[in-house]
Amino acid sequence: MSNGLLKGKKGIIFGALNNQSIAWKVAERAHEEGAQLVLTNAPIAMRMGEINELGEKTGAPIIPADATSVDELNNLIQKSMEHFGGKIDFILHSIGMSMNVRKGKHYTDQNYDFTMKGLDVSALSFHKVLQSAMKQDAMNDWGSILALSYIAAQRVFPDYNDMADNKSYLESVARSFGYHYGVAKKVRVNTISQSPTMTTAGSGVKGFNEFINFSEKMSPLGNASALDCANYCIVMFSDLTRYVTMQNLFHDGGFSNTGVTQEVIEKFGQ
Amino acid sequence: MSNGLLKGKKGIIFGALNNQSIAWKVAERAHEEGAQLVLTNAPIAMRMGEINELGEKTGAPIIPADATSVDELNNLIQKSMEHFGGKIDFILHSIGMSMNVRKGKHYTDQNYDFTMKGLDVSALSFHKVLQSAMKQDAMNDWGSILALSYIAAQRVFPDYNDMADNKSYLESVARSFGYHYGVAKKVRVNTISQSPTMTTAGSGVKGFNEFINFSEKMSPLGNASALDCANYCIVMFSDLTRYVTMQNLFHDGGFSNTGVTQEVIEKFGQ
Amino acid sequence: MSNGLLKGKKGIIFGALNNQSIAWKVAERAHEEGAQLVLTNAPIAMRMGEINELGEKTGAPIIPADATSVDELNNLIQKSMEHFGGKIDFILHSIGMSMNVRKGKHYTDQNYDFTMKGLDVSALSFHKVLQSAMKQDAMNDWGSILALSYIAAQRVFPDYNDMADNKSYLESVARSFGYHYGVAKKVRVNTISQSPTMTTAGSGVKGFNEFINFSEKMSPLGNASALDCANYCIVMFSDLTRYVTMQNLFHDGGFSNTGVTQEVIEKFGQ
Amino acid sequence: MSNGLLKGKKGIIFGALNNQSIAWKVAERAHEEGAQLVLTNAPIAMRMGEINELGEKTGAPIIPADATSVDELNNLIQKSMEHFGGKIDFILHSIGMSMNVRKGKHYTDQNYDFTMKGLDVSALSFHKVLQSAMKQDAMNDWGSILALSYIAAQRVFPDYNDMADNKSYLESVARSFGYHYGVAKKVRVNTISQSPTMTTAGSGVKGFNEFINFSEKMSPLGNASALDCANYCIVMFSDLTRYVTMQNLFHDGGFSNTGVTQEVIEKFGQ
Repeated sequence: MSNGLLKGKKGIIFGALNNQSIAWKVAERAHEEGAQLVLTNAPIAMRMGEINELGEKTGAPIIPADATSVDELNNLIQKSMEHFGGKIDFILHSIGMSMNVRKGKHYTDQNYDFTMKGLDVSALSFHKVLQSAMKQDAMNDWGSILALSYIAAQRVFPDYNDMADNKSYLESVARSFGYHYGVAKKVRVNTISQSPTMTTAGSGVKGFNEFINFSEKMSPLGNASALDCANYCIVMFSDLTRYVTMQNLFHDGGFSNTGVTQEVIEKFGQ
Repeated sequence: MSNGLLKGKKGIIFGALNNQSIAWKVAERAHEEGAQLVLTNAPIAMRMGEINELGEKTGAPIIPADATSVDELNNLIQKSMEHFGGKIDFILHSIGMSMNVRKGKHYTDQNYDFTMKGLDVSALSFHKVLQSAMKQDAMNDWGSILALSYIAAQRVFPDYNDMADNKSYLESVARSFGYHYGVAKKVRVNTISQSPTMTTAGSGVKGFNEFINFSEKMSPLGNASALDCANYCIVMFSDLTRYVTMQNLFHDGGFSNTGVTQEVIEKFGQ
Repeated sequence: MSNGLLKGKKGIIFGALNNQSIAWKVAERAHEEGAQLVLTNAPIAMRMGEINELGEKTGAPIIPADATSVDELNNLIQKSMEHFGGKIDFILHSIGMSMNVRKGKHYTDQNYDFTMKGLDVSALSFHKVLQSAMKQDAMNDWGSILALSYIAAQRVFPDYNDMADNKSYLESVARSFGYHYGVAKKVRVNTISQSPTMTTAGSGVKGFNEFINFSEKMSPLGNASALDCANYCIVMFSDLTRYVTMQNLFHDGGFSNTGVTQEVIEKFGQ
Repeated sequence: MSNGLLKGKKGIIFGALNNQSIAWKVAERAHEEGAQLVLTNAPIAMRMGEINELGEKTGAPIIPADATSVDELNNLIQKSMEHFGGKIDFILHSIGMSMNVRKGKHYTDQNYDFTMKGLDVSALSFHKVLQSAMKQDAMNDWGSILALSYIAAQRVFPDYNDMADNKSYLESVARSFGYHYGVAKKVRVNTISQSPTMTTAGSGVKGFNEFINFSEKMSPLGNASALDCANYCIVMFSDLTRYVTMQNLFHDGGFSNTGVTQEVIEKFGQ
């Protein structure tokens, strides 16, 4: 399937770990829609990953960059512009990690070094990407930049731990930077708040199966898949959504505005 | 218990049907806190009600008024000012009824005459109260006007039916009129979005027991009681909250910002 | 410009009055993207309108229907299915009118017959369209239904009058019906909250020029045009946004999440 | 004025720098309402401050603590419990500082060490206070913990810089920790989103006078004063608001839900 929505556009995709990743699907779909791509990941993630396969499939070079390192981001942006022979039209930020979660620290018993590390990787990295792009004047006018978020930024899901606070920060960065990038260059910045998705990252979270199940039953359309999320990213990168900016966009089968479903309430009878 | 928070203040309370009603508790608490009151209800509701007992207990006259009738509201406001010998400091609107719910019409099979009737009783009546008070210049500066709402105004609870749309309209009226009344007279207008409460009104809704149970388990503090809601109304009528206006205030034990609780998620395991 | 996004899809468009209308642009763009259309308007609006020109341009029959009349809506839906030879994939509801505004009644001095009439035309009509479609099982699975809204549903713009309350009701209907239609048929229902737009409808509002100007300066990307709004509608009708439902989507150049801009704040210096 | 609302209650107040501070007013009002207090500030802030005067006035010991230091917070909590001879009923967190703002770094040209430092002081410190209190089981059941926030957490005010992101994180901490503290101990955690206030902290921000002026004209009741904010804190510490938790409460004269006022729109005519 292709509608040529990204014909002639150039983009950078962070976070394609393997073929379950949302970023992987976005890369595949963006390629189908006619975009040229650069793929990137943290060097450490790439050793585990199968990203070379994706690079070949989409004709995209892979430029490693630790998204917490300003220097490596600067290098990535510069090399990408050289590769494209021009400026960039879109960027996907799909990066998140909580050290407290990994190390089994409860939200009320955080190790604050872990907290800071998780914030840097999951949220401040998005500011660093934006700042690096802006300083190098790397984006074309009306470019589009997305990060992936989750509704824990608005409501508490106990096991999501400090990732909730990181996602709140991430969404705030999208608004704040979206203002400045919009005024300066007409570049729009948004987050997509996606259904829980059975990726490698998600599957590490305690109680994730129960949670996926709950979310499925609380969503009138069911959970959105990684591929559907990729399709939504494509339209947000296209020229058909040029006045959408500084928004957090729920892509969740209706979960966010559902208080309860018939199927769930039935579990609470006698 | 009394802190004299409403000493010298005068208020009108709509909707005290019986001693389970939130409005009943508000009347009792307002009286304890030193307020003078007028009680009112629709003539038809009063025939069923025990409001005379409340009138005696709180030393308040009872002035019937159909809240959909501008004439009856005008009369109520005028008679109240005569009784008080001056202007009014606070008003509680605790009125709601869906004819579609009563008649067993599903949300997707509405009778639109019922819909209009329910909107008039549940939401437009609030505008009528406000407009009547403003036209008669009946409120003291910095007066406080409250209506009771429910989170169905933001999220779908299937059995709540068209009351959801009515509550959205009600909350919008609080904002819109709050703007104009604030600019003109410093009068503040807010809604309190209360936990589901086992009142006579609530208990008529299909599946209400299951719903109360679900809500209890989804609220970190549990559901808020009618008495706690009354206490919150008291502080919103007091001079300690003079710059809170045009808000919808969740009084729900944390339900509104809880995505899921441990206790609920456990029902979704294997 | 065409990406074939709506190839093979069939849709009904309400509210194309003249070539300034958003609905007009949506019809043009939907046609370009490969859709088959039925156009509709209130009989009274059609006498004033130039809709025949649009019908010829897009090859669409025009079937008059007063959107407050269940019978006329039923007829419209039935005739549309006959015309298409099958079910419907998308519907645009772009209808709004406040009698209080037209007659110069201030928000605090409403005529409640006018209020009810405006609500019926602007908001309840959306429920009627949805209910009519559902009862006739007129929508294909994964169909998409949109209504146009405005941020006055969330925040007060004094001259917008009771249209604010109507838009709150409209957005609530999108959520409520979106739940039921999603569960039953995977049909999604959303509202787009558009920048103020210089249409025939808009230009009748008092102080509209000042307001457009304010909004332009408060939006990092400026106000969104009718054509841009049409493009956003196209993507919301397409298969690329299948898991977005029960949402209110701001299409406003960032206005909704901007507290103030540099350009505006400068007016508040010494 | 006193209503004895905090009679018998014990609380810790962070951030009373001088008599313009909101925290200063809260201390005065809490004392009037019958509370026993401990005052605290960062050692460095205390050298500049006049907090001893407040300590004498309210009979409160002053226990310095850098709110970014877990050790100093642990000491503060422990010493406070020793002083009170028991557990704590309420805490006010009124702390914020952006190093990027202080050093004149634009939002799009951040120094990330400054960013991290500002986050630690302004937002993570709130988590540290909560975690320290919980680990020492320092709060009485139904205790109340507040932090002060600003609407920049939701909407962009360009000069507010990275404090916007810090406030988003702060509000998320209130929700996340509010869940866990509510379930464990019925302790409620909220933020109050206050009008811009001419305190020592505020007055350092570029363009603050213009901003106060804009905010005044965009608020139907005008900006809320520090004293009014203190009154609101008192009711949130009292037993009359026991089921309000995990909320961000706007105390802003209606600013948050006002799209534009008549007075502002008039600046945008010809």
